[in-house]
Amino acid sequence: MDITEFVKQSIGKWRSQRSAHHLIFAHFEAVRSEIEIAPLSLEDSAVVELCQSYGIDPQTADSPFRMSWEGESDWDDNEVMAGSTVLVPIPDREAKNRGKLLRDRGYAETIPAVGNYHITDDGTFVLLTEYDRAAAEEKIWFVNPNLRFRVSTIKTSDGTGVVTASFASEIRSLNSEG
Amino acid sequence: MDITEFVKQSIGKWRSQRSAHHLIFAHFEAVRSEIEIAPLSLEDSAVVELCQSYGIDPQTADSPFRMSWEGESDWDDNEVMAGSTVLVPIPDREAKNRGKLLRDRGYAETIPAVGNYHITDDGTFVLLTEYDRAAAEEKIWFVNPNLRFRVSTIKTSDGTGVVTASFASEIRSLNSEG
Repeated sequence: MDITEFVKQSIGKWRSQRSAHHLIFAHFEAVRSEIEIAPLSLEDSAVVELCQSYGIDPQTADSPFRMSWEGESDWDDNEVMAGSTVLVPIPDREAKNRGKLLRDRGYAETIPAVGNYHITDDGTFVLLTEYDRAAAEEKIWFVNPNLRFRVSTIKTSDGTGVVTASFASEIRSLNSEG
Repeated sequence: MDITEFVKQSIGKWRSQRSAHHLIFAHFEAVRSEIEIAPLSLEDSAVVELCQSYGIDPQTADSPFRMSWEGESDWDDNEVMAGSTVLVPIPDREAKNRGKLLRDRGYAETIPAVGNYHITDDGTFVLLTEYDRAAAEEKIWFVNPNLRFRVSTIKTSDGTGVVTASFASEIRSLNSEG
């Protein structure tokens, strides 16, 4: 599986159940959300600007997309978490199953981030992102075309301690209007 | 990584946080448990009997072990879930990173079960077990020597529907008496 195929499989609306394990306190958090993943063109101004901010030629990008989410955590019923981020894969020239992933809003911190991804032989997308104070690893794979799993870990930046582990099961919303 | 090394890394006591996602109803279940994984010898009567019940020579087994657990689910505070199962890997002769796993008590159903396992290039142990009415897939990998993740899915036996997805983060208990 290469990045083109992986993004293509991800396009659509998903109903997500996410469990976060806060490991130090053995605490559970449960989040329900709706996720939408929509393709963007290489000419989209958000894609061009994100590439340019890293000095990367937008024409080397492959399958950029926007991910939007809206959800509720059991930690705070009144807070609706909603957001949107632009993601731009820049595959390596030699090997299309690995490369960089630019985003305008990171997973562990809400600032732009560049991660390194690769796709394993069994089709698992693995993304490593280092921030100033933390490092994030994300593994995503498809159980079938309408179900994907996502396991994320947030570590301290020195890599020693894993602070949070989370697991999302995401089911494709098959109704056309979502 | 082969099965010998994988079992060796797993030996010990673990504090587990497990989240089950019941996908049809988007329901969350949280389970805290203590898990102990202890090695067994090839001569252990439980190992010999389990092998014999499948007509397998116990001397072809590698790194058999016993897994015991005791835990509490948020579904029923009064119920203490406890149990123990004997697991016996029978590696393929040609490739030590794949083979069969015998157990005297299955994951999806509490009857003896034989699963097929393989270990991927990036060190993920993958186990597939088919039961009469269900099929289970389990992926286990180490984030570091003291933290392992386990993602399990239970499907209907025809393989079409995934009924339950669960994620466990397991931290090694470093105190000697557990």
